[in-house]
Amino acid sequence: MSKIKLGILGGDYRYKILFDMIKKEGYEVKAYLNTYIDNNKNNLDQLLDSTNAVIAPIPCTKDNKTVFLNDEPTIKYDELFELMHKENIHLFFGGVIPEEIKIKASKYNIKCFDYFEQEPVAVLNAIPTAEGAIQTAMQESEICIFSSKALVLGYGRCGKVLSNMLKGIGADVTVSFRNEKDEAYIHAYGLKSICLSNLKCVIDKYDFIFNTIPAMILDRNLLKRVNKKTIIIDLAQAPGGIDYSFARDTNLKALYCPGLPGRVAPYTAAEILKKTIINICLSQLA
Amino acid sequence: MSKIKLGILGGDYRYKILFDMIKKEGYEVKAYLNTYIDNNKNNLDQLLDSTNAVIAPIPCTKDNKTVFLNDEPTIKYDELFELMHKENIHLFFGGVIPEEIKIKASKYNIKCFDYFEQEPVAVLNAIPTAEGAIQTAMQESEICIFSSKALVLGYGRCGKVLSNMLKGIGADVTVSFRNEKDEAYIHAYGLKSICLSNLKCVIDKYDFIFNTIPAMILDRNLLKRVNKKTIIIDLAQAPGGIDYSFARDTNLKALYCPGLPGRVAPYTAAEILKKTIINICLSQLA
Amino acid sequence: MSKIKLGILGGDYRYKILFDMIKKEGYEVKAYLNTYIDNNKNNLDQLLDSTNAVIAPIPCTKDNKTVFLNDEPTIKYDELFELMHKENIHLFFGGVIPEEIKIKASKYNIKCFDYFEQEPVAVLNAIPTAEGAIQTAMQESEICIFSSKALVLGYGRCGKVLSNMLKGIGADVTVSFRNEKDEAYIHAYGLKSICLSNLKCVIDKYDFIFNTIPAMILDRNLLKRVNKKTIIIDLAQAPGGIDYSFARDTNLKALYCPGLPGRVAPYTAAEILKKTIINICLSQLA
Amino acid sequence: MSKIKLGILGGDYRYKILFDMIKKEGYEVKAYLNTYIDNNKNNLDQLLDSTNAVIAPIPCTKDNKTVFLNDEPTIKYDELFELMHKENIHLFFGGVIPEEIKIKASKYNIKCFDYFEQEPVAVLNAIPTAEGAIQTAMQESEICIFSSKALVLGYGRCGKVLSNMLKGIGADVTVSFRNEKDEAYIHAYGLKSICLSNLKCVIDKYDFIFNTIPAMILDRNLLKRVNKKTIIIDLAQAPGGIDYSFARDTNLKALYCPGLPGRVAPYTAAEILKKTIINICLSQLA
Repeated sequence: MSKIKLGILGGDYRYKILFDMIKKEGYEVKAYLNTYIDNNKNNLDQLLDSTNAVIAPIPCTKDNKTVFLNDEPTIKYDELFELMHKENIHLFFGGVIPEEIKIKASKYNIKCFDYFEQEPVAVLNAIPTAEGAIQTAMQESEICIFSSKALVLGYGRCGKVLSNMLKGIGADVTVSFRNEKDEAYIHAYGLKSICLSNLKCVIDKYDFIFNTIPAMILDRNLLKRVNKKTIIIDLAQAPGGIDYSFARDTNLKALYCPGLPGRVAPYTAAEILKKTIINICLSQLA
Repeated sequence: MSKIKLGILGGDYRYKILFDMIKKEGYEVKAYLNTYIDNNKNNLDQLLDSTNAVIAPIPCTKDNKTVFLNDEPTIKYDELFELMHKENIHLFFGGVIPEEIKIKASKYNIKCFDYFEQEPVAVLNAIPTAEGAIQTAMQESEICIFSSKALVLGYGRCGKVLSNMLKGIGADVTVSFRNEKDEAYIHAYGLKSICLSNLKCVIDKYDFIFNTIPAMILDRNLLKRVNKKTIIIDLAQAPGGIDYSFARDTNLKALYCPGLPGRVAPYTAAEILKKTIINICLSQLA
Repeated sequence: MSKIKLGILGGDYRYKILFDMIKKEGYEVKAYLNTYIDNNKNNLDQLLDSTNAVIAPIPCTKDNKTVFLNDEPTIKYDELFELMHKENIHLFFGGVIPEEIKIKASKYNIKCFDYFEQEPVAVLNAIPTAEGAIQTAMQESEICIFSSKALVLGYGRCGKVLSNMLKGIGADVTVSFRNEKDEAYIHAYGLKSICLSNLKCVIDKYDFIFNTIPAMILDRNLLKRVNKKTIIIDLAQAPGGIDYSFARDTNLKALYCPGLPGRVAPYTAAEILKKTIINICLSQLA
Repeated sequence: MSKIKLGILGGDYRYKILFDMIKKEGYEVKAYLNTYIDNNKNNLDQLLDSTNAVIAPIPCTKDNKTVFLNDEPTIKYDELFELMHKENIHLFFGGVIPEEIKIKASKYNIKCFDYFEQEPVAVLNAIPTAEGAIQTAMQESEICIFSSKALVLGYGRCGKVLSNMLKGIGADVTVSFRNEKDEAYIHAYGLKSICLSNLKCVIDKYDFIFNTIPAMILDRNLLKRVNKKTIIIDLAQAPGGIDYSFARDTNLKALYCPGLPGRVAPYTAAEILKKTIINICLSQLA
């Protein structure tokens, strides 16, 4: 089953690692011209020749039209999909694929797999995200996380993994909840819980606040009550969950930390991508 | 908000504790004649008089017709609901309420709350269930759970809580999964994982096997491979997930352990019921 | 290096397991007449013939004169050592070896190894002791250990292992200390601490109290303040650390639990003995 | 008991925090001229006036003669102790106090307390040291610590706390040991162990190596076998435990990390000092 042949388009450092990993596992993989990945770089025709899946960057586009590459020449998705179609390539991987691109792809009978829509990727990415959040908290604070009071807002993938890791390192962790089911799980995992609607009564007590909820949770009413020494770390997707202008005006230390996996643990991040790409290829190309 | 007035029908030991707890929190509560709960026992009319919710046993019936009470006199649900209706009582709590009873209740405009259908109850009950499973494993085995190899089948509520607790006490824990999302979570919580379809290759390696999946998982094909010293503990709902006749014939130690919360930790179990009953009453009677 | 040849004298169930384990590892081992261990039982002469270490019971004697065996014939230590000396056997293992026996042995140039004086054995035994204590606490109580308040008196071997295991299973653990060094370690291991001299102010708050200090700690002044629902488990060596007569008179649930390893986890206990015996033989017979 | 009156000489950032903490607890404290701590700075006479303990820097001297201060004027210890003696001050705190200074002090009947000789301080300092080591490992590596393979060399204060914290954050931790007692404890705390003499067989397997042993452990024979991707973090006291010149020549990533508490968690570090200073003052001035 080594018929998997991948073409990597674009390339931050994570993709360089990904390239090496895929190669090491015995699959064929080629890199495109303007990446710093390969010695033997390929133009688009070469990249697509006897390839069976294309791996686009993270994010895959910034203008909804062209592949997000650092340098010239630009590649239009229309052009790319046309070529893929000709070469009989039906699998397309990328990060944050906009609806527009997906629709375009479907016209060419190309299946799009957005990493971040794959639930296992999202769960596994919560690990380097949580660890990156802890690293950031350590760097920014003058106290230890051990035996500090930490508040985690949200109990989704990231909130679950982060709260468990913070507990493991010795923090006194409280997690916010909205419904009784989450409250029960938070308790069952040995963490303290606080109903989101009661936050304002306790928000001044924490040394660290980690937000994972993609909504304006820490608005000025709550921020007003936060201790000036508290480190606030925002892990929610853009635009985050904090009133940053108010935080700045009142000298609160609020840090917006998107894309931690690629930054703090590119190797681990690449491994997660690899696992997913290979799994999907194995089932789609079977 | 002390307008909550509860009538407890039936009464194993857990309900006796529940009765005391509710009273201690300042709510009104009465017990029925043939329970050993109260000094001041009530007949059905007295029980329902100025009460606003009825608490039936666990299970609430065994014949789908009468309230499950140990002694005479029997109370028919038709009769009970009729009386509740007259007294303007619209809340009915119980364990394992059959569809038939629910339909009957709805005719009298009575809302049924089955404890075990309340997700928070089910999650919280996973705690005494897990602890009871560990206690049983300790009692039955000649080795320590610490540093033993434990397999948990299933990663639902009970599998999650049990695997985490086993890890906490020092076992080397592997959890089975069916899908990649669960696999990712199992990994993120620091546990080993095994795909259910690969079980047969590894099933001989465990000192303890805990089943939480309500389906015939440990059939004779798998049981044949299990080590004779392994302790198998089945936490799945009736009829469990083990081929018991085969286990018996081959001298495997397979224990069916239903209803652990009420048996090993009646106080904790009662507390979970109380929390739910009060929460529902507060929102329904508001 | 299979020149290790052992003779087992006496035999509770743990020794039966020990016998099988030693055999399984490829060493020679023989059992004495009146044990239920072996098919091929030996009289004393046969046992000692071309043996190089003798393993006596736990405890090795009850009268300071004869080997502690359940049945006739009795074996006097004078006689045993005389015979060992003749056979050129210089290693003697046993549990709780009194000074008198040790002196006797030294006259015959026999080295005595008391299991319980071997620090590694004592540390490793703390594991089944802790687990047995937790099992006992689970059996005796109506609440879960998870999220209960547990007090551990003493931070020696057993206190360290037990407090860590209780925390792992989700208890809220407080450990008593006498000096600041222990206080610091208790904190560093994520546990709460209380100075032994302040116990009386807080002793009423715990659901479980585990004593590991071999001194009268829980005297009537402290017991008076203990909650009637508290389960007290005493792991200290005889005579334990609780005023039992006072506890009985006041209906406190105080359980004296000596020798847990052999009782709750004989296999684990035997493994610890085996490891020590083999290690010592390897270094002494080298 | 607010007769504690302290004079702080010298002042890195940690001492600035210490100053504020002591003040906040209600004790009297003064700062010396050339620190950036206080508004109301004091010359030496003012500092010592009605003070009952002097707090010298960390380290307290670099030349064994004068107080280690960043700026002029220099203060000789002869002079300082003479003045302290006149003012009837008998307590002197500082970090890394050389024997020479201690002898000098004793002539003036002044008791020296070196923070790092106080066992509780050393244990508590292991917490920010461990956390700083983890932070450094996170910053330097491209992988997560979670589920990485980590080796901790040494099982003293720092090894104990670090290995436990690494386990808590999800690493697969192995700890080296020299004697069976440590081996037993390492096992009892749920960690893997490796005898120091067997290191060379396994040293290539780790993603992270943390050294806490103050001796040349990682010599060129061992370093030769270490994986090029491994991050080595040295927490041992100067000169550390790694052959740095060999590591450099072979492009190994070996980081010498002394004094982590003051650097990564100055607030926590100051709190540890404060606790010790106050405790000692309370007992010495009683």
